[in-house]
Amino acid sequence: MRTIKLTKRQEELIELVKANQPITSEQLADKLNITRAALRPDLAILTMSGILDARPKVGYFYSQKPTTSLIHDYIRNIKVLDIKSKPVTVSENYSVYDSIVTLFLNDVGTIFVESSGYLVGAVSRKDFLKTAIGSSDVHKVPVGVIMTRMPNIVTVKDTDTAYEAARKIIEHEVDSLPVIEVVKDELQKEHYKITGKVSKTTLTQLLVKLGESQG
Amino acid sequence: MRTIKLTKRQEELIELVKANQPITSEQLADKLNITRAALRPDLAILTMSGILDARPKVGYFYSQKPTTSLIHDYIRNIKVLDIKSKPVTVSENYSVYDSIVTLFLNDVGTIFVESSGYLVGAVSRKDFLKTAIGSSDVHKVPVGVIMTRMPNIVTVKDTDTAYEAARKIIEHEVDSLPVIEVVKDELQKEHYKITGKVSKTTLTQLLVKLGESQG
Repeated sequence: MRTIKLTKRQEELIELVKANQPITSEQLADKLNITRAALRPDLAILTMSGILDARPKVGYFYSQKPTTSLIHDYIRNIKVLDIKSKPVTVSENYSVYDSIVTLFLNDVGTIFVESSGYLVGAVSRKDFLKTAIGSSDVHKVPVGVIMTRMPNIVTVKDTDTAYEAARKIIEHEVDSLPVIEVVKDELQKEHYKITGKVSKTTLTQLLVKLGESQG
Repeated sequence: MRTIKLTKRQEELIELVKANQPITSEQLADKLNITRAALRPDLAILTMSGILDARPKVGYFYSQKPTTSLIHDYIRNIKVLDIKSKPVTVSENYSVYDSIVTLFLNDVGTIFVESSGYLVGAVSRKDFLKTAIGSSDVHKVPVGVIMTRMPNIVTVKDTDTAYEAARKIIEHEVDSLPVIEVVKDELQKEHYKITGKVSKTTLTQLLVKLGESQG
């Protein structure tokens, strides 16, 4: 996306028009202590972009039309496909203890659980911590017992936006979303294949990238 | 901040100029199948904003000057003060178990530890989980034993930017930063008072807000 950022002079003109409308280009030139000719390109940009209205023989008005929010558009244009990272998965019969070890070895916050190659569950650090301070033996309990099970897992697809992923994370109070692809087996039953994940970390990294990128 | 978003036609013109430079307005009008007069306002906007260069008797060139990234500016203008949330704190002699209970009751990911009203430590879910699967008795071990201790805690101040906070979270691989204020005691010794926190959740919420706000 490409945009034009207004100059200080253009911002100044908008403020002057807002405060004194209608105001002629002579009056504006006068207030800024420059010539009308020097003002012409700026006034042209402002009227052509719809920020100011020019009425012949009356002067310039500030147009009430809100300018589209670029930030809004920009963020809604980033796709899950562009930001997703690799998910860490274990199988359903892994013990809670082994799953926690997998979590630490991969330094992630959420583990996804697969069965026959399909996504069946998700376990967060919070879930693990709850089990770990409970009375059950983490070496014996399989992760399938404590995981959040499909269809109770909030998911996104490659074509969803980063904004949509962030909204789901906040709304459902989860740390991480599996990125899924719907596949059908021979019996036409639908399954989810996990192709990635989008976590609060992914989204924080996105914010850093947005703040870093120069144009 | 106010900006002009380019129209489809203007974007199209930039692409045509990039591919065919130098190109005259006649040639551009021809390619777009419209009149030169219809093209004039768009070409004026693009040259006045510095995206295109016009050389008399030669034609239009694409100017290499990068347009300032608005997103970049915007994100770097949001302050920690504007987004920080309430921190959850316990005192150093709390047991690990009681601290975990506090963590769950407040549904947060990191607990900060205070002593005499000053910040002395931080404990994340990961730290708690490590202790919980270890051999120590979480009911007996005080949180002060397992916490990350000052000065090893990464902090931010109210006047830092949200971008800076996000960068620190990613760089130091932490979930949450305490927002601190430096105070001096009677002996002129410096201490940190905790006034808030910025976490990956705070930053994900910010991303949602940026995606939602219309202008």
